Amino acid sequence: MTPQRLKTLQEDGDAIVVLDQTRLPSEAVFQRLDSLESVANAIINMQVRGAPLIGATAAYGVAIGLADDATDARLAYVIETLAATRPTAVNLQWALRRMDAEIRQLEVTRSVGLIQPTRCAGANQCFAKPLLCRCCEAWKVASRIAAEDEAANAAIGNHGLKLLLDLQTLARPIQIMTHCNAGRLATVAHGTALAPVYAAHEAGIAVHVWVSETRPRNQGLLTAWELAEAGIPHTLIADNAAGLLMMQGRVDVVLVGADRIAANGDTANKIGTYLKALAAKAHGVRFYVAAPLSTFDFRCENGAEIPIEERAANELHAGGISVANPAFDITPAHLISGFISERGVLAAGDLLQWKT
Amino acid sequence: MTPQRLKTLQEDGDAIVVLDQTRLPSEAVFQRLDSLESVANAIINMQVRGAPLIGATAAYGVAIGLADDATDARLAYVIETLAATRPTAVNLQWALRRMDAEIRQLEVTRSVGLIQPTRCAGANQCFAKPLLCRCCEAWKVASRIAAEDEAANAAIGNHGLKLLLDLQTLARPIQIMTHCNAGRLATVAHGTALAPVYAAHEAGIAVHVWVSETRPRNQGLLTAWELAEAGIPHTLIADNAAGLLMMQGRVDVVLVGADRIAANGDTANKIGTYLKALAAKAHGVRFYVAAPLSTFDFRCENGAEIPIEERAANELHAGGISVANPAFDITPAHLISGFISERGVLAAGDLLQWKT
Repeated sequence: MTPQRLKTLQEDGDAIVVLDQTRLPSEAVFQRLDSLESVANAIINMQVRGAPLIGATAAYGVAIGLADDATDARLAYVIETLAATRPTAVNLQWALRRMDAEIRQLEVTRSVGLIQPTRCAGANQCFAKPLLCRCCEAWKVASRIAAEDEAANAAIGNHGLKLLLDLQTLARPIQIMTHCNAGRLATVAHGTALAPVYAAHEAGIAVHVWVSETRPRNQGLLTAWELAEAGIPHTLIADNAAGLLMMQGRVDVVLVGADRIAANGDTANKIGTYLKALAAKAHGVRFYVAAPLSTFDFRCENGAEIPIEERAANELHAGGISVANPAFDITPAHLISGFISERGVLAAGDLLQWKT
Repeated sequence: MTPQRLKTLQEDGDAIVVLDQTRLPSEAVFQRLDSLESVANAIINMQVRGAPLIGATAAYGVAIGLADDATDARLAYVIETLAATRPTAVNLQWALRRMDAEIRQLEVTRSVGLIQPTRCAGANQCFAKPLLCRCCEAWKVASRIAAEDEAANAAIGNHGLKLLLDLQTLARPIQIMTHCNAGRLATVAHGTALAPVYAAHEAGIAVHVWVSETRPRNQGLLTAWELAEAGIPHTLIADNAAGLLMMQGRVDVVLVGADRIAANGDTANKIGTYLKALAAKAHGVRFYVAAPLSTFDFRCENGAEIPIEERAANELHAGGISVANPAFDITPAHLISGFISERGVLAAGDLLQWKT
């Protein structure tokens, strides 16, 4: 679907190679992650970011963490280490729970930690083949999670495209506002909020994207970078400008991603999302949240139960001033026109249909 | 009232000395402005900023512009040049209209431009004394405008203090959120939105100020700087964090300044103000606009008539990306709890009482 010039995440033997998003857009630098610690740090430092991509990366982190020792104790330690990296995006927990469950369900006749004198070399080169190796089985599960993210996002693109078609006029390109980066850089491929934008562009439908800078980490520059790469017209704005643009009638729809969606539809997403939702409501602009099912947390009844990560002060200011830096906010369900997942589009009140 | 360690604007013979606000908070640099062009550029480049301070500076700019030639033609040119510097803040136009009217009302027996072989040296050293010199009369009017700004803001502080007292509890300091810089740096003295904060602090009332960064120009850092100078507790936040903090019940009142207030109460202020007003409304947080009468534009029926300045793209981003950079937005009157001026506090529907 989307041209994938630079992949966010790739397998490389017994390691993964990720695009270092803290170096974008000024330079495209790849980093090879071959240890549990390197994977955990890449997530903490936001070299890897975006809820779906964090989930997939953590899944691979489990496999990488089991290379030298795949005992139950090590598995528990690996999962605990990765789970502690970031608190808000639920895809992380979802991926780790799934890794744990699928690994434990295996008929493990021989686990690497029990037999090996040497390190597991990954799913394709594992010395234990054709015997069942717990570590390289973990690689296979992680690969499936990554492939499913790609497929889910492609489906989100198609479902969202239909919503965009409803907004098409002859007068001008469809004016889409987004926040943060919920594009291909935030996922294994295609993006969430940007998946419908890519789908529309590929279908020859004229679109224009208002890209919020997204202080303090400026992920809007990532969005601008990937939209430019895809040839999609876009304009960077200060986060502060969202209300005026909607008041002036220059926005047709807001599309954002999510880090966690509670059972009632309250949505945690990058700090500032809530302000855009308030402005959209005030001006009758539709506001959609696009996310794969792995972002829905039916264990959370509502937004008040979602932990909000407080990040370092120096993300906002270099020092000498007291700083509060919450990384996410909660958009109440009543401000959200609909949710787009790989299963389709639902209103907040109907989300339980997607509970599995 | 407020300790005035570094004055924003001072007379200096036939020139003015201003604190260069583009160099703050990293360094306090003063700039001497002794020509019409230097005054106009200081306003355009935001070395001098804040609606009331722009007004007072422009008033002095008229006097400085008349030093070599005080003919009617020159006066018209000077006023036109200064009026063109920035479109949104109405204090600029107000000050220029007043300068024009008061200068023309003088019984001008000899104007500098007609008699002088040398430049007028300012109100205190003018060679024409005791004869009436149009240029040094202009200095006197500008001085009055500056003194009146200081007095108006002191009165705003006292009126606003009463509103803050209503919010006082034993539980915690009064939690005030502001946007941009509407403090003493934005005025000749005391500030507008921050005047009640200074008044409360001096009255021994515990306050804490949430300071928005205010992208793209980061005037929040000016606010943090002057609050630190005054010893008032404050916390810097990304503009994006305003909604979450209100949702969490951590804000008691929002106090902002204004660049122009229409007759119906619709208010132009720094871009992003509107988003804070929406969030305040959603959470029952009072939202006050503090401004001297010179900021009220009864010629503007409503906010739609207020021109919004579009500033350079490089304020937001260094290049290579299409940028929209509106510097102000309009907060509709229905989101504003009240207006604080030197005359007292009024609701939007009563503003015509202040029409003179």
